[in-house]
Amino acid sequence: MFEIDPAFLATSHALGDLELCHARLQDDARYPWIVLIPRVEGARELEDLSREQLAVLMDETLLAGRMVRAVGTAVEKLNVGALGNVTPQLHVHVVGRRAGDPAWPGPVWGHSPAQPYGAEDLARAMERLAPLLA
Amino acid sequence: MFEIDPAFLATSHALGDLELCHARLQDDARYPWIVLIPRVEGARELEDLSREQLAVLMDETLLAGRMVRAVGTAVEKLNVGALGNVTPQLHVHVVGRRAGDPAWPGPVWGHSPAQPYGAEDLARAMERLAPLLA
Repeated sequence: MFEIDPAFLATSHALGDLELCHARLQDDARYPWIVLIPRVEGARELEDLSREQLAVLMDETLLAGRMVRAVGTAVEKLNVGALGNVTPQLHVHVVGRRAGDPAWPGPVWGHSPAQPYGAEDLARAMERLAPLLA
Repeated sequence: MFEIDPAFLATSHALGDLELCHARLQDDARYPWIVLIPRVEGARELEDLSREQLAVLMDETLLAGRMVRAVGTAVEKLNVGALGNVTPQLHVHVVGRRAGDPAWPGPVWGHSPAQPYGAEDLARAMERLAPLLA
């Protein structure tokens, strides 16, 4: 049975289930940042998905890019990464980056502690994301 | 006309052209590391590729994973990333990671200066990759 690794629950907010992936908003107000978790039991690497699932993952990665642009102002570059060194359950990060953001031009992963959303900013982000999740 | 950003030439060795991507071996003997550069003029983001091109990119990303495992011993986790904050031409990194490698468990990008291959190690890597590029 597919279960989301609890590590994601502590660091992000649920957005909902897409065709393949469970989508979450990373709880770091410094970057617009979506995490996609394919709902495939035991998957750790991209090679654990079928070609059909990989095609859907690509569609959902592009959608996550649009979500990131909807949440964040001034996204200059998308960063897409499937790492999993800390949490091996397969997941894809889609992060909106801009020159001068805290980790720029390095990667965000492992850079510095998250700055969680305040209640108002979180509500605004969720409002902006809703049309893309419909 | 498609041209490879010269930044890649200084940091990696050409492996050859796949159906979509030009493939290179990152010149860092500490990690087995393949860079795929879709031969699509002006592409900076995944969304700049067609769905057909994205499907081929996925196939070639899986192939790069097999290449990484062929070059490196003891690959425990693949890291796949499309960042481009420094070199915006669209490219995908596929890196073989293991617990205790220099950047573990953080990302390799921007971690520390590369340790270029010696001539013998490079020849051995190329020999191991050849069957996968045929």
